[in-house]
Amino acid sequence: MAKGIRKRSTKAGLPPGTLVHVGEKRAEAVRITLIDYDEERFQEKEVTTVEECFPFKATPTVTWINIDGLHQVDIIEKLGKRFELHPLILEDVLHTEQRPKYEDFDKYIFIVLRMLGYNEQIQVVESEQVSLILGTNFVISFQERIGDVFDHIRERLRNAKGRIRKMGPDYLCYTLMDAIVDNYFAVLERFGERIESMEEELVTNPTEKTLQQIHTLKREMLFLRKSVWPLREVISVLQRSESSLITESTGIYLRDVYDHTIQVIDTVESYRDMVSGMLDIYLSSISNKMNAVMKVLTIIATIFIPLTFVAGIYGMNFENMPELKWRWGYGAVWLVMIVVAAIMMVFFRKKKWL
Amino acid sequence: MAKGIRKRSTKAGLPPGTLVHVGEKRAEAVRITLIDYDEERFQEKEVTTVEECFPFKATPTVTWINIDGLHQVDIIEKLGKRFELHPLILEDVLHTEQRPKYEDFDKYIFIVLRMLGYNEQIQVVESEQVSLILGTNFVISFQERIGDVFDHIRERLRNAKGRIRKMGPDYLCYTLMDAIVDNYFAVLERFGERIESMEEELVTNPTEKTLQQIHTLKREMLFLRKSVWPLREVISVLQRSESSLITESTGIYLRDVYDHTIQVIDTVESYRDMVSGMLDIYLSSISNKMNAVMKVLTIIATIFIPLTFVAGIYGMNFENMPELKWRWGYGAVWLVMIVVAAIMMVFFRKKKWL
Amino acid sequence: MAKGIRKRSTKAGLPPGTLVHVGEKRAEAVRITLIDYDEERFQEKEVTTVEECFPFKATPTVTWINIDGLHQVDIIEKLGKRFELHPLILEDVLHTEQRPKYEDFDKYIFIVLRMLGYNEQIQVVESEQVSLILGTNFVISFQERIGDVFDHIRERLRNAKGRIRKMGPDYLCYTLMDAIVDNYFAVLERFGERIESMEEELVTNPTEKTLQQIHTLKREMLFLRKSVWPLREVISVLQRSESSLITESTGIYLRDVYDHTIQVIDTVESYRDMVSGMLDIYLSSISNKMNAVMKVLTIIATIFIPLTFVAGIYGMNFENMPELKWRWGYGAVWLVMIVVAAIMMVFFRKKKWL
Amino acid sequence: MAKGIRKRSTKAGLPPGTLVHVGEKRAEAVRITLIDYDEERFQEKEVTTVEECFPFKATPTVTWINIDGLHQVDIIEKLGKRFELHPLILEDVLHTEQRPKYEDFDKYIFIVLRMLGYNEQIQVVESEQVSLILGTNFVISFQERIGDVFDHIRERLRNAKGRIRKMGPDYLCYTLMDAIVDNYFAVLERFGERIESMEEELVTNPTEKTLQQIHTLKREMLFLRKSVWPLREVISVLQRSESSLITESTGIYLRDVYDHTIQVIDTVESYRDMVSGMLDIYLSSISNKMNAVMKVLTIIATIFIPLTFVAGIYGMNFENMPELKWRWGYGAVWLVMIVVAAIMMVFFRKKKWL
Amino acid sequence: MAKGIRKRSTKAGLPPGTLVHVGEKRAEAVRITLIDYDEERFQEKEVTTVEECFPFKATPTVTWINIDGLHQVDIIEKLGKRFELHPLILEDVLHTEQRPKYEDFDKYIFIVLRMLGYNEQIQVVESEQVSLILGTNFVISFQERIGDVFDHIRERLRNAKGRIRKMGPDYLCYTLMDAIVDNYFAVLERFGERIESMEEELVTNPTEKTLQQIHTLKREMLFLRKSVWPLREVISVLQRSESSLITESTGIYLRDVYDHTIQVIDTVESYRDMVSGMLDIYLSSISNKMNAVMKVLTIIATIFIPLTFVAGIYGMNFENMPELKWRWGYGAVWLVMIVVAAIMMVFFRKKKWL
Repeated sequence: MAKGIRKRSTKAGLPPGTLVHVGEKRAEAVRITLIDYDEERFQEKEVTTVEECFPFKATPTVTWINIDGLHQVDIIEKLGKRFELHPLILEDVLHTEQRPKYEDFDKYIFIVLRMLGYNEQIQVVESEQVSLILGTNFVISFQERIGDVFDHIRERLRNAKGRIRKMGPDYLCYTLMDAIVDNYFAVLERFGERIESMEEELVTNPTEKTLQQIHTLKREMLFLRKSVWPLREVISVLQRSESSLITESTGIYLRDVYDHTIQVIDTVESYRDMVSGMLDIYLSSISNKMNAVMKVLTIIATIFIPLTFVAGIYGMNFENMPELKWRWGYGAVWLVMIVVAAIMMVFFRKKKWL
Repeated sequence: MAKGIRKRSTKAGLPPGTLVHVGEKRAEAVRITLIDYDEERFQEKEVTTVEECFPFKATPTVTWINIDGLHQVDIIEKLGKRFELHPLILEDVLHTEQRPKYEDFDKYIFIVLRMLGYNEQIQVVESEQVSLILGTNFVISFQERIGDVFDHIRERLRNAKGRIRKMGPDYLCYTLMDAIVDNYFAVLERFGERIESMEEELVTNPTEKTLQQIHTLKREMLFLRKSVWPLREVISVLQRSESSLITESTGIYLRDVYDHTIQVIDTVESYRDMVSGMLDIYLSSISNKMNAVMKVLTIIATIFIPLTFVAGIYGMNFENMPELKWRWGYGAVWLVMIVVAAIMMVFFRKKKWL
Repeated sequence: MAKGIRKRSTKAGLPPGTLVHVGEKRAEAVRITLIDYDEERFQEKEVTTVEECFPFKATPTVTWINIDGLHQVDIIEKLGKRFELHPLILEDVLHTEQRPKYEDFDKYIFIVLRMLGYNEQIQVVESEQVSLILGTNFVISFQERIGDVFDHIRERLRNAKGRIRKMGPDYLCYTLMDAIVDNYFAVLERFGERIESMEEELVTNPTEKTLQQIHTLKREMLFLRKSVWPLREVISVLQRSESSLITESTGIYLRDVYDHTIQVIDTVESYRDMVSGMLDIYLSSISNKMNAVMKVLTIIATIFIPLTFVAGIYGMNFENMPELKWRWGYGAVWLVMIVVAAIMMVFFRKKKWL
Repeated sequence: MAKGIRKRSTKAGLPPGTLVHVGEKRAEAVRITLIDYDEERFQEKEVTTVEECFPFKATPTVTWINIDGLHQVDIIEKLGKRFELHPLILEDVLHTEQRPKYEDFDKYIFIVLRMLGYNEQIQVVESEQVSLILGTNFVISFQERIGDVFDHIRERLRNAKGRIRKMGPDYLCYTLMDAIVDNYFAVLERFGERIESMEEELVTNPTEKTLQQIHTLKREMLFLRKSVWPLREVISVLQRSESSLITESTGIYLRDVYDHTIQVIDTVESYRDMVSGMLDIYLSSISNKMNAVMKVLTIIATIFIPLTFVAGIYGMNFENMPELKWRWGYGAVWLVMIVVAAIMMVFFRKKKWL
Repeated sequence: MAKGIRKRSTKAGLPPGTLVHVGEKRAEAVRITLIDYDEERFQEKEVTTVEECFPFKATPTVTWINIDGLHQVDIIEKLGKRFELHPLILEDVLHTEQRPKYEDFDKYIFIVLRMLGYNEQIQVVESEQVSLILGTNFVISFQERIGDVFDHIRERLRNAKGRIRKMGPDYLCYTLMDAIVDNYFAVLERFGERIESMEEELVTNPTEKTLQQIHTLKREMLFLRKSVWPLREVISVLQRSESSLITESTGIYLRDVYDHTIQVIDTVESYRDMVSGMLDIYLSSISNKMNAVMKVLTIIATIFIPLTFVAGIYGMNFENMPELKWRWGYGAVWLVMIVVAAIMMVFFRKKKWL
């Protein structure tokens, strides 16, 4: 989180609309993929210069330009100029710590989403900003790095599976959003598993490390929440939007994505509640443990301190201590001690400490 | 909960509207029951193929098609085609981890509810998704498995009891929803009993298991809440809907269901508050117990440690210890000890530790 | 609370509008009182059959029919038929665990309220459902049992005191609601006293029973809250209602009742905050007590354990222990012990433990 | 708080609009002050009978009638009759435990506020109800007792300082409200000082009394909050009111009062947060203290218990204990003891207990 | 905080619109800077008397008058008279403890913001009120002291960098607001670092000082929050404003500032959550520590108390104690002791206390 802020603050003072990439710098080249289709035709190619995409702006077919990597600012700039995008949009595309948002510029719609992924190696949620621009006959998507959750969509486009090839760019835009939201479920599944295993650990063997883990989980939850709550608003506004770019039939599908988002939010909130509950259990488990320690101490001390006192009595060196000379004195003392100890035991058992 | 998410995530990547049953797979056959009635006539039959239901679409009588079991996707698909249902609806019917929702497609209304049941064996709330489709002259209901809370309604239909046979499909739809909501009270009653018995246990004999049970109860409450809160919205929207499918007279009945839903929510919230209060009591009961343990230890130690010290004094082997030779030395020491112990006792009694 | 739910669940499965009394069954007869008045005339009588009330429906005078006891369902039914009440209303009247609500059926208005009473014997708030039906020239009130807070109103009606005899049924309805809300203040006063006395107890002598009492208070508060929050909404809607049954001049009075309701809610919320604060005090008082116990133990142990050690040293039986033979050995040991004890004392005093 | 409720409940059962003073009874006479002014003229007098004020109702000049003391109900009644005030308003004026409110009766506006004062003697916030009635050419203010925050305003009126003499009664009404709200800052300043001094005490020397004080502060905060939150609403509604009694130029000034109210609320909320934080600090300070006590006990016990054991060994009376006869036996035992104690010390220092 | 209130309360009683500077008094002179520009021309000068600015009101070029220092009330007053500002605005400018606000006076717009700075020396956030007045061809900015975050903007104006010189005063006003909001990120970055370092400290070595620091952080967070929440509202209202002073193209930029503000709020809220989490960790770390202390005490006491008892037994002086005369008596006792200690050890290891 602090990282995002840091990046942001380095940009302070520059005029608005200045294109500076504030995300992680990368060495690899930017990959530009172009997919152009209508119901009959389909064309897919990886282009080397962004200019190759420009002719498609004029064609009536649906064009999907996908940019993987944002560190070559001039590419974004050229694209922005050709597709007449507002400078602030390009700035938002490059500034990769945006919260999800939706903006309607009559001629196109601008959407920022966060694509999540669960890094299994370091057990951490990773997040990438995906910016979508929906125009009359094109969709441009910007991603921070190669690798996404859109492969199923590309496959469907190639095979003309489902209704996707028959529909316009708004439907494409919807499928991209749907894929991103659907992927949230996969991430939540991993969280669910972690929560379950942590709950087991909590019951069987809570340690100080457990607390640390609960805390980490809580923070990740916070992060997840920050990604999904604005998403809900974005999709809600999009769905109710009166933009001519979104056809009525796609509106129904957006309602579906909205439902999924709500479900994601519900789950995140439930998980948060569970994690909070875990903290309560942890704390009362510490108390219970301390209680157990105290009981052991008390039992031992309470039994032996009086006995030691008795032994101390007959260790005194008074000249005139008649008991010391009694024949069964020693035995009697043992008897007294055993009786005292037994009474204590009964007392503890009654108190349910044993 | 994690289960629902898991199911959901397996579907990620498929084109929207793909019909895949994401609930539990079952071996038994799907049961299709058809009830067709108007004020005079009544017909009830279990059909083997879904096609037998199709002719009823054209008749003016009210037709209720009930599907128990969702694992035969082709049945759903055929039904959907014949009744012109949107693919997303069929998808929602099959994906049985939906949150309650309401959607208005001019020609029909789609409602998803959760039917709850309390499994007495394992003392757990069970939940099943019920999807209702209300058309001009039909109601289609989808359930995950055989067994529901609608038997009273079937009985009333058969016997023409109440006003149900005189009314349209919207009234039937209302009675189904009413039956589901009414059943929530039964489930809440079981919860109420568990809470009461747990509160008693909490006062008489709280153990670590009690905490575990409170936690479980809290989670089930969370689950219940997730089912009823959206329900409220669903019924509220339905009631205020301007759909021509819902007559004004049924609107009044929906207002009644709405009131019941509010009452369910109120009760769930009260129970939540009570369960939270139980945690507070549990925690302070642990503290109180530790306090009691400490007091026992302190009383024993505080009485005997000084006495042992006194005994220790006269166990010293100095050659020149005049007290040791006194005639009543030993008796005097006993007297001192008894006085010290008595003072301690008085002190503890004043502090109300005894 | 659980009781209300239990009652409710026994009704599940019956057709809506079925009249079954789900409250406590009673042996005594239902009492029907009829008051009929206008500015000049006044008539009050206890009738034995409900049919005696029917002629008054046609007269232009204001008629107040009060039913005490709901267990004779046929009375309610006849009344409902004659006054053309919707079956769901009669159902709501009989089902005495309703939350306060308001419903506008063009020809009459239906209001459900909870009348509270403080049972001094068992120190518990008791609650009774009062249902009001306001028509063009009548008010019908249903109560669960004989005994209410309306005696002042009857008196005023008899004596033509205040403006009540000059006004219509809406004003009568308002005075009934006002009497119920005013009575809440009396109940809250009792609560205020209990809170005050409990706060004193908390400071002077908190015991485990105190916690139990705080918990009970919290639950009663919860119950009270459930009664008053919906009341606020009811009166708010009623006041803003555009029903022709409510004249403008009565609207101003309703605004007054609304203010009182808000004041009741404010007080309930303040009390809740106070009760929560009491829990905090209770918990920190337990901690403080444990601290005090620990200090006593520590002081005693810390003083005597080293002294006992010293005594133990000179209780050893080594042949070669020169101190034992010193003349002032014994005295010196005593001196050492006293000095050690004094240092400890100074240390504890510095730490403010003594 | 309970007091307000108690007063309120004594009134239950009386017809609405009955004028009964439910505040504190007082012996001193009611003081009526009349100020009449326009841009040129200014007249101020203390009148003995309320009738002397009546002629001013007809004059075009602005008239401010201030009533100090509400226990002579007939004065209020006469005034109400002459100025045609609704009976419920008079009732609200007399019932001095109102929450701030605003009511618009076409011909006049009725405002209830709470004037706060900090009683330095008993360190408590005192509250007084101020009711304002704004008519076309008059303002009537009712106060519970002599003494208010309006002296500056009277001075300004006398000296024709500021724009007050040039403006209408709405501006006068605004200045009265502004004076009341401005005074809240003085009260908050005293709170701020108490919080600061209590925070210092909390760090340097927290005692059980501190907790009591935190609790008291919390309750006073609650009380303050109850006064200012509704105030915000009152001024907000007043500002947006379309009453012809409030000129547009005064509207801008009301916006200013509104800002101040928001600032008061902000401060109250911040103080509440601080007081909550103090409770956390108090509780963890108790824990820290107990920890310190425990450490002392543990250090002493852990060092001396093993040493005492060693001494006990050589206090045994076995005939055959070779060490007892060794020449350096006694010295060796001392050595062992010192080494054991030293190891313990190192251990504690490593644990940072010393 | 208390400071702001104190200042405010000193002003109570003065007529509204009285110009009194309620901020810190300063010795240095007020600095007035004037920048006047359009697309071609640019003029920047520091003026000594405010009258020098007046001619620019009539020119069509954009004029930015910046006042550093508010203690010379007459300057503000003259400026206000010339630019026809409402007296309440001047009052708000001088009263430097305002919360952010926006007011629209047809002919100009008045905006109050808080400019934050992080004082590295004393590790504290410092805040300064910036008041902006946007007219048809001018922007006036008031600051409490010399030094601000606007240098980048001045630079851009001088160099005609970006679109700033081509745009009107609304764009200038936007850039000023943008600079202030951008600077919040820098402040938040410092907070983020402090939180991170504190979290490390919390894990490695929490002391009582840590609690104090968490508390301080929490209070600063509270303060930050009070600055940014109203800011959001200000910008939101500004953005949706229909004032003719704000052109549509600037509206898009305001949307951008709004997004940044939301991001700032999000971060502040996340930080608050983190700081709350730190308190939980701190408290459970205290508990854990106490637990560790208790374990050490219990282990030592539980091992040695029984052994000391055994030693005490054979220190008794009974004449008839056969064990004392056994040859291997002493050795046997040692054996018993070692076995007892070993059993204890195994017990503790099983309990995971060692």
